[in-house]
Amino acid sequence: MFQKELAVVTLSGGMDSCVALAHALDKGFDVALLHADYGQRTEARERKAFMEIAQYYRILPQRQLIVPFGHLSLIGGSSLIGMEQSIPEGDLHRQGVPSTYVPFRNGHLLSTATSWAEVLGASRIYVGFVQEDSSGYPDCTETFLKSFEKTAEIGTKPETQLTFHAPLLHQSKREIILWGDKLKAPFHLTWSCYQENERACGRCDSCLLRLRGFHEAGLIDPIPYTSGPNHF
Amino acid sequence: MFQKELAVVTLSGGMDSCVALAHALDKGFDVALLHADYGQRTEARERKAFMEIAQYYRILPQRQLIVPFGHLSLIGGSSLIGMEQSIPEGDLHRQGVPSTYVPFRNGHLLSTATSWAEVLGASRIYVGFVQEDSSGYPDCTETFLKSFEKTAEIGTKPETQLTFHAPLLHQSKREIILWGDKLKAPFHLTWSCYQENERACGRCDSCLLRLRGFHEAGLIDPIPYTSGPNHF
Repeated sequence: MFQKELAVVTLSGGMDSCVALAHALDKGFDVALLHADYGQRTEARERKAFMEIAQYYRILPQRQLIVPFGHLSLIGGSSLIGMEQSIPEGDLHRQGVPSTYVPFRNGHLLSTATSWAEVLGASRIYVGFVQEDSSGYPDCTETFLKSFEKTAEIGTKPETQLTFHAPLLHQSKREIILWGDKLKAPFHLTWSCYQENERACGRCDSCLLRLRGFHEAGLIDPIPYTSGPNHF
Repeated sequence: MFQKELAVVTLSGGMDSCVALAHALDKGFDVALLHADYGQRTEARERKAFMEIAQYYRILPQRQLIVPFGHLSLIGGSSLIGMEQSIPEGDLHRQGVPSTYVPFRNGHLLSTATSWAEVLGASRIYVGFVQEDSSGYPDCTETFLKSFEKTAEIGTKPETQLTFHAPLLHQSKREIILWGDKLKAPFHLTWSCYQENERACGRCDSCLLRLRGFHEAGLIDPIPYTSGPNHF
C-alpha cells in the first residue's frame, strides 16, 4: 500500500500555523500536529483552538501532541508568560525586540518538532513563521530556520533526514489570509489575541496585525472582538 | 565593584559535567547551574548528585535551575526513558547510535541553557560533552555544538552574545578523571549509572566507561558498585 510521507506541523492555534497546516495537507502529506504550552496567558484559549482545528481536519489522537514547556515559565523573561509585566498595547511601528519575545522560544519548539519527527519517522517540519509580521523576534527568521535545519541534520541519527518549511515566511498577513481563504483554512477556529480568552482585545500587536490583514484582504474576520483598533 | 562574568553550566550529576563546572569556576566565572529532568530512570539519583554538587560549591539557590523536560518523556524513543525497553548491557565496541540515545536531547538542553543565559545576561555556556566516549550520540559532537552556537547567535537578541564551551570534548575518560582530580572536583558526589539508584551497576555503558577511566588513571572510584565489570 502506498504510504504518504509524514510531516510534523507546529500548530499554535493562530492563523499562520493554521494556514501552514492547510498547505501541508494540500501538498498531500499526512500530518502530526504539535502544540507547545509555554505558560503564556492565553494558553487555554490557544489549546482550544488547536483541538478544534485538529478535529476539523480529523487528525488522529496519536498524531496530536501537546507538550508542556514548563521550563520556559521557570526561566521567564517575557511579558507573554508570568504576570509581572503587562502586555504592551499594539504599536506596529515600534523598533527592536518587543517585551512579548520569549527568549529563544523557537529553539525549544523546533527541538521538540525534531525529536518527535525523529521518533515518528517524519520527513518534514512545517512552521507558521512570518518574518515580516513577526514583531522583530530574532528566532522567527529564515536565517534562523535554515541554521536550525543544519543543526538538526548534524544532531540527529544519520537516517533521520528532515527539512524545515515555513511556507508563509515572506508573505504579508493579507497574502496569508487570501491563501488560507483559498485553501478553506478554518479561520473561525483560530485565535491570535495575546490578551484575552473570550473575545479578542483588538488592541494588542497580534490583534492589530490580524485585523489589518483582513482589512487589506477585503474579507471579514469571523472571530469576535471586544473593540476595534484605533489605527493599523 | 568588579563583577565577574556569568557562565551557565549544564550539570547532569555525572562526572563530566562536574569537571566542566570545576573548570568554569577555576577560570574565574560566576556560575549558574542547569539540570534537566527528562524522565530518565535514574533522575532521582542524578538530581541528588546535582544538589549535592551545587551545595559543595555553595551555589546560591537563584543560580540553580532544575527544568522538567516532560515533553521528552511524552515523545519517548529511548531506552533511557519509559519502561518499555531495557537498558542494554555495556559493550564499548558496539557500532552505531545506541538505544539509550534520547532523540535530539541536547537540542533541548542547549535551547534551555540559551534561554536562561539570555535572561541572566550570561556570556558563556559550559557543557560536559565528551565526543570520544559519547557512545555515538550525534548531538554530542563538536560540529553539533558549533552549529548550535551559530543558531543561538542568530535566534537571540542582538545584545545576547553567547559562546558555547565543551572543555572535555576531546579528552578521554582517563584525562577527565586526572583533570578533575587536579581541580578537586567532588567525584564522590557524582553519579553515572544508567540503571541503578543505590549502588552503581558496574555493567551499563556509562559504568564501564567510568570504571575503565579510573582504572587507566590509576585512581580509585569513590562511589559504591554492585559488581565490577567483566571486561573493559
